[in-house]
Amino acid sequence: MENQNKSLAVVAVSGGLDSAVATAIAAEKHELALMHISYGNKTQKRELEAFHAIADFYNLDKRFVADIDHLRKIGNSSLTDRNIPVEDYDPNIQGIPPTYVPFRNANILSIAVSWGEAIGAGLIYVGMMEEDSAGYPDCTEDFINAFNNMIKVGTRPETNIELIAPLIHMTKGEVIKNGLELGAPLELTWSCYRNEEKACGKCESCVLRLRGYKELGIEDPIKYVEMEGKVS
Amino acid sequence: MENQNKSLAVVAVSGGLDSAVATAIAAEKHELALMHISYGNKTQKRELEAFHAIADFYNLDKRFVADIDHLRKIGNSSLTDRNIPVEDYDPNIQGIPPTYVPFRNANILSIAVSWGEAIGAGLIYVGMMEEDSAGYPDCTEDFINAFNNMIKVGTRPETNIELIAPLIHMTKGEVIKNGLELGAPLELTWSCYRNEEKACGKCESCVLRLRGYKELGIEDPIKYVEMEGKVS
Repeated sequence: MENQNKSLAVVAVSGGLDSAVATAIAAEKHELALMHISYGNKTQKRELEAFHAIADFYNLDKRFVADIDHLRKIGNSSLTDRNIPVEDYDPNIQGIPPTYVPFRNANILSIAVSWGEAIGAGLIYVGMMEEDSAGYPDCTEDFINAFNNMIKVGTRPETNIELIAPLIHMTKGEVIKNGLELGAPLELTWSCYRNEEKACGKCESCVLRLRGYKELGIEDPIKYVEMEGKVS
Repeated sequence: MENQNKSLAVVAVSGGLDSAVATAIAAEKHELALMHISYGNKTQKRELEAFHAIADFYNLDKRFVADIDHLRKIGNSSLTDRNIPVEDYDPNIQGIPPTYVPFRNANILSIAVSWGEAIGAGLIYVGMMEEDSAGYPDCTEDFINAFNNMIKVGTRPETNIELIAPLIHMTKGEVIKNGLELGAPLELTWSCYRNEEKACGKCESCVLRLRGYKELGIEDPIKYVEMEGKVS
């Protein structure tokens, strides 16, 4: 494909810590095009704000934002269904947690590939983590590999897009360490599943984030509702 | 998954001839849930109307409709970009035709899986054809297989959804023959990429459809702008 540019990378940016670090890693080597998808998640306004703050920090004009309301309509997740509260993190929970949004990442990454193919990108970066995560099935290396195979057969023969997940085997502490070393704007990110002003410190996403900072022995720069007893 | 029902099948229904026949085939064996996605395509109103007409014909209440405007914003296709006209079918065209919508079917099928997982479906039917088609990369058996592999690894361990493309190796004539034998409401379907009142008879989709009817030696029940010289 004549206009394909192996050095142009789309980054799927939720506005959270992991996607900010994935952006920082991609920025070391590539020209970037940032994509953000709202999907009816309860904190979507705050995440969109974080997305633009990260894109501003890196001074990037190539931005694509879409709102896919169908995942809210489909529901079946505490992140999108207003009748299911986001619970405090429970380390004893078995199986896939209620925050799992059915097949969400296939929806989001398919949009990234559509955009990437249209603008001639050669890479898609994503901040997924496997081990130190909530255990979502669509956040695993097996999923990344299966998705890459689908990209290969499902796009134009001259399209050559590879999906890259540089954090897939890192702990949260390692992600933060990488982000700090690369100067990623972690203070601009948003991880909380529940609140949009001050992070709750108790949902799964806050607990994983705080545990990462604790692993490094440093303080998280964002504001929390309460500063005591936040790490279970 | 306790509520999973191997006999419940989601059918992705564009409103075209192929998806109506896929619906008829699925209806022989399963309880159906019909899904339709508008994606900013020029004929989306007419296709949505055809979808509801097919769902009404089968007397189905389980319907899911979503409008994913991002494929229109991404453009790069004569089906979605208002500045690129839908050309008459050209049998000499090389490679992927301009009607290809980048990675469209991965977007649509990901929504089908999200919905299917949420409602506990065990199957997803899709009307894709490989040989007697426009040659889109995301309409092939390789793509179906790669997508099935991604479903397997990317959904809950207890979810077991299989994507089925019963028309994949049929000719258009065979599709119509199957549809007629099963009593599919082919007169309610819409295939034209260009018009919403009378089919143009000249775009790729019309020409493939008319060629199928010609193969069987019968007349297409829908209305065309002109009835002469329509099959090239």
